Order: sequence, then C-alpha cells, then structure tokens
Amino acid sequence: MSSLQGTEQAGGGPKVVALGGGHGLSASLSALRQVTERLTAVVTVADDGGSSGRLRSEFGVLPPGDLRQALAALCGDDEWGRTWAEVLQHRFASDGELSGHAVGNLLIVALWERLAQRSSGSVPGPPGTPDTPGTEAGTGMPADRHVAGLDWVARLLGARGRVLPMCAVPLRITAQVDGLDPANPALVETVRGQSEVASTPGRVRSVALEPPDPPACPEAVAAVREADGVVLGPGSWFTSVLVHLLVPELAAALHETKARRILTLNLAPQAGETRGFSPERHLEVLAAHAPDLRVDVVVADDAFVADHPALVDATTRLGAELVLADVAWTDGSPKHDPQRLARVYAKVLSS
Amino acid sequence: MSSLQGTEQAGGGPKVVALGGGHGLSASLSALRQVTERLTAVVTVADDGGSSGRLRSEFGVLPPGDLRQALAALCGDDEWGRTWAEVLQHRFASDGELSGHAVGNLLIVALWERLAQRSSGSVPGPPGTPDTPGTEAGTGMPADRHVAGLDWVARLLGARGRVLPMCAVPLRITAQVDGLDPANPALVETVRGQSEVASTPGRVRSVALEPPDPPACPEAVAAVREADGVVLGPGSWFTSVLVHLLVPELAAALHETKARRILTLNLAPQAGETRGFSPERHLEVLAAHAPDLRVDVVVADDAFVADHPALVDATTRLGAELVLADVAWTDGSPKHDPQRLARVYAKVLSS
Repeated sequence: MSSLQGTEQAGGGPKVVALGGGHGLSASLSALRQVTERLTAVVTVADDGGSSGRLRSEFGVLPPGDLRQALAALCGDDEWGRTWAEVLQHRFASDGELSGHAVGNLLIVALWERLAQRSSGSVPGPPGTPDTPGTEAGTGMPADRHVAGLDWVARLLGARGRVLPMCAVPLRITAQVDGLDPANPALVETVRGQSEVASTPGRVRSVALEPPDPPACPEAVAAVREADGVVLGPGSWFTSVLVHLLVPELAAALHETKARRILTLNLAPQAGETRGFSPERHLEVLAAHAPDLRVDVVVADDAFVADHPALVDATTRLGAELVLADVAWTDGSPKHDPQRLARVYAKVLSS
Repeated sequence: MSSLQGTEQAGGGPKVVALGGGHGLSASLSALRQVTERLTAVVTVADDGGSSGRLRSEFGVLPPGDLRQALAALCGDDEWGRTWAEVLQHRFASDGELSGHAVGNLLIVALWERLAQRSSGSVPGPPGTPDTPGTEAGTGMPADRHVAGLDWVARLLGARGRVLPMCAVPLRITAQVDGLDPANPALVETVRGQSEVASTPGRVRSVALEPPDPPACPEAVAAVREADGVVLGPGSWFTSVLVHLLVPELAAALHETKARRILTLNLAPQAGETRGFSPERHLEVLAAHAPDLRVDVVVADDAFVADHPALVDATTRLGAELVLADVAWTDGSPKHDPQRLARVYAKVLSS
C-alpha cells in the first residue's frame, strides 16, 4: 500500500466532500468511494454519549465516534481492510472500565494524545521518527493536532480518503423541542446534548450549537471550497446534517463553492428527532436553519415520497433539481444501498 | 504489503525462534529480524502488573503486555511501521479509566474478544468476512483463539514475524526469595506475582509457575521443534527467560530440537531479581531450573565478564561453546546493540 494513503489524493475521479455523521455518513462514503478516489469526509463533533462522551470528558478532545465510523467506511475492501473496519467498530464488553469503548475511538484518541505530548515536548520521538505526519516534504503539518492525528490514523489503516472534523472544538447541540409535556404540548423546552436530542420523545423545532458560531476546521472549509461535488445527508437530520450549516465558515463555503451541491434525503423519519417528518418537511427545516443555502440536486427515492408536488415545491424553493431514483435496499427497508446510491452520484457528478 | 504478512513465512533465512519477554526479547527480535525473514517470538504470559494485569483481570485473557512489545519490535522499519510501533507502545495518560493502558494491549484484547464472540456465535461476521484469520486456505484456524488473534494483529500491523504465547493459559510466577528479613537473612519466603518478583529487595533463589506444568502453546512447541536456531535471552532472567523452561512441553522441545540453541547472557545484573549476579551465576541458576537442558552457544560480551575461567567452566557444563563479542552499545551502557547482536547471530546461525 502507498505510504501516503489517507492524505495524498492523487487518484482519479472528481474531488468530493461528504458532510454528515453516524450511519448516514457511512452510507454516503460507502457510495462515494465507488465514484472517486478523491474523497473527504467532514464529520460532526457534537456527540456526548457513550464511548465518545466518556473520552471527551476524560481527555478533553473532540468526540471521536463519528470520525471513527467515517474511517471504518473508508477502509479497504480487501480482507485486510475489512478486518480493520471491523476492529475499529468493535466495542469491548465486560463488567470493567473498558466496557463500551470502541477500539477505533481509542486509536484516534491515542494519536491525538501522542501528538499533543510530542508538540509539548514531553515525549520526544526516537531518532528518525517523523514529527510531521501525513504530509509530503515541504507541505507542512496541519496546524490542528486533531487533523494531524486523523491523517495519521487514516494512513495507518490504509483509508481510501481523508476524514476531517467540521469544527476544531468539541460542540454541544441544543434543541428547541415541543410536545414534551402532555398537559401543554405547545410548550417549547430546551433539550441539551446530541444523545438527548436524537432520542427526544418530543418534536424538534430547531437546533443550535454551543458555543455558537464555532470556528470551522480550516481544512474542511478548504475542501468544500475546492470540491467538484459536495454531498450533504443522509443522516440524523438535526444532529448530523443541519449542524454543519450552523458553523458559519462552513456554511459560507457551502454557499460559495463552485461544487455541485447534492442533498440526499433520508428515506424515512427517524424515531426521536424527525418523527412524522415528510421528505419536504426535511427540506423546510433545512431552509429554516440556513436561509441562504442553495442546493443543486436533491436525491430522493420515489417509493418513499407520498406527496410529489409538495416535494417538488420544496426542492424548487432551494433552487434545486429533484432526482428521483431507486436508492433504497431492494428488500424495501428504508436504508440507502451504497451500490445504488453510487450510480446516482456518478451520474449527478458527471453531468 | 503482503496480505499474509505475520503468518506466512516464505521469506529467506533460517527459521529462528526467540524466547523471552519484555525489553530483552525486543532486543533479541530487533537483532534477529536483520538475520532472517522466518522469525517467531515465543513470549511469557505471566505479567500481572499495570495495564496487562488490569486486562487479565477484566477479560480473563492472557496478559498482552509482553506480546505487544514483541509485535512492536517486529513492525516494519519504514515510517508507517515505525509509527505503528510507537502507537502500540503509547500509554494513555489521564486521571481516568484509560490511564496507563497501552494501545497495543487494547488492540490485542479486542481481537481476542472479537474471535471469542464470533466463535460463540454472538457476533456473526458480515457476509464475506473471514472466519479463519491468519491461515492459508486449507490449513485451518489455530485451535486457540489467542494464537488466531495474535496472527491477525500481526497481519494488521504488517509485522515481520509471528508472535506466540509460550502457554495457552495465564500464569503466575512464584519465587523463593531470601534476604527479605534483615533480622534473619537466610529465611526463605515465597513471593508471588511477576511484578513482585521482578522488584523484590531480596535475593531470588528459584522460581516456579502456577499452575505448575502448564500446557504449552502447541504452535510454540512446533516452532521450536522445526527451527534451525533457537535464541533464549537476554531478559529478566527469572521472570522472562527461565520461565520458558518450566513449561514441560516447551522444555522438551528445547531439549530435543535439532536447532542450534543460543543462550544470550544479560550484560549486567538487574536490580531486583538478579542483583549481584555474575555471568556464570546466570548460567548456574538456569541449569538448576532445567538440569537436562543442553545449549550450543553462549553469547557474552568480554567487557562485562570479570572472571573468564568461571564463565568458561559454567558454559562447558551446559555443553556449550562460549562466544565472546562486542554486543553492547558503544557508549558502554549494559544494553545489547541490535546491530552488533545481529552480526553475532548471523555468524553463529550460519556456522
């Protein structure tokens, strides 16, 4: 394997950036890696539950969970790569202190910790050890150790693309939610934390970030600006997709990039944050959070659209063309089939 | 890289097995990897302190620490391999639950846990996922998941050799120690646990294993029997070197193999278990623990031998030839220089 895999993108195909988090981003990356060798994932960093929440609190780092899932989706498709993907996703199960931690989360945090110790001089590398990982001679080390650490993990795993955090600081998601109080269903309350928002029994009206207007990861902004194509969604609509639009520099880059902007709708509402949402409602809440955003293509699956005229209207209001295609698994489950999604992306990105 | 690295040994050079643990085995492997591409490490599994002790107790697995060190010593010497070696050896430093754990220990335990879950049927692999790692078609999966897991880790890291536990069950070392009671220095007491024995302020007279006569790892026994050369030492004399001779099938294989048997002496006594030991005293305690063992070559460094006739006598009693060579670092520190050691091994193994 190339010693620069994961950071060097000399391969073929358009430059594509996929934004999201969690399983939705995995589906997106699994499709896009079939379309291009120049792929960058830009990933939410607001997770506060489980292994990520524990690591964030123990080490003061970005939550690694969504970054790990993106890296696993980019591992090679030979036996070696598939095994690495499995190992990254493996969670310890015991009665002890490691239980629940995902191996990939620990690997990412280890690289971050190692780089932090080295830059503070507390752990000098042995002679001949590289101090500027993931870069070719002369290109310099990324300013942010989070990025440098992720580039190194990608290289160590032979990942087929680059994985970047959307933001250089850990975030917290807050949501305005109604329907929580049966006696007063119109009462709007604030729900704090990604895991709480994603599983709220109420109805999410809007989300916001703490801190507000957080600094974007400069490499992520540059990737969006230089891309030929940008893909947003599918994924947890408020907590993995919309949040990218709440980072001002990233929203500006998405607004200004010459890339073809593709928005892929979820096939079904998600228990918790988008219960009862129609496809057009997904677009409306997106527009409400980012009134300036224009999109070129909205990808939806005919079989999951009940009200075509309403979806066409909502798509038109975003300035986009609606592409209807069979992108769900053939068994009818409301999940994207990476093979089918890849065919749509290939077509849209080449047109 | 080859997808079978770490288990397939199709490379050149003699088949060599190095037995030991900890830093001593790292030095041995760092030297031997320059001499042959067919290298197997057989590693102690009695560690009960630190990260290994915690994992052993949390998961009921073999202590992974010495296995991790051997794997790190076998990582590639390009930037990718050197970085993996560093990452394996990295220890988390925090005020939390991960502090002190070495990354490589966690990776090894994850593979063991994954294989255990899969063989119990609780985690079926996804379609197309290998169920028989680290083996060529038709050779079958090693019976012991510890071996299968280590073969997988070696492949994932591109390790230049195979790493095996000496024994299929976790062990405890006990030692008979005198000099612990200032009022009664001849009183012999039992000290339990590798970490306690290695750091005892007393004088170790002998060591034993719990359980006694433990079952050897069959792959380790086979490797010793099929080897062209076997290297024992350097290393913590009682807790990393002698213990191999207390596993009956391994001792028998060492006795009966047609391999050239090389014993490499430590350059200096070790605070704790061999305080005040002369080179010949190292050989005498070895002979006391394995009266039947015959050795072909004893490697020592002239600069660290005070009483030549005594060392020659002790060597002759083992049936061995004494090879004196400059194997220490040129700065005079009592540590083996892998380059110098490699030259001695190349010569001894080709003669």
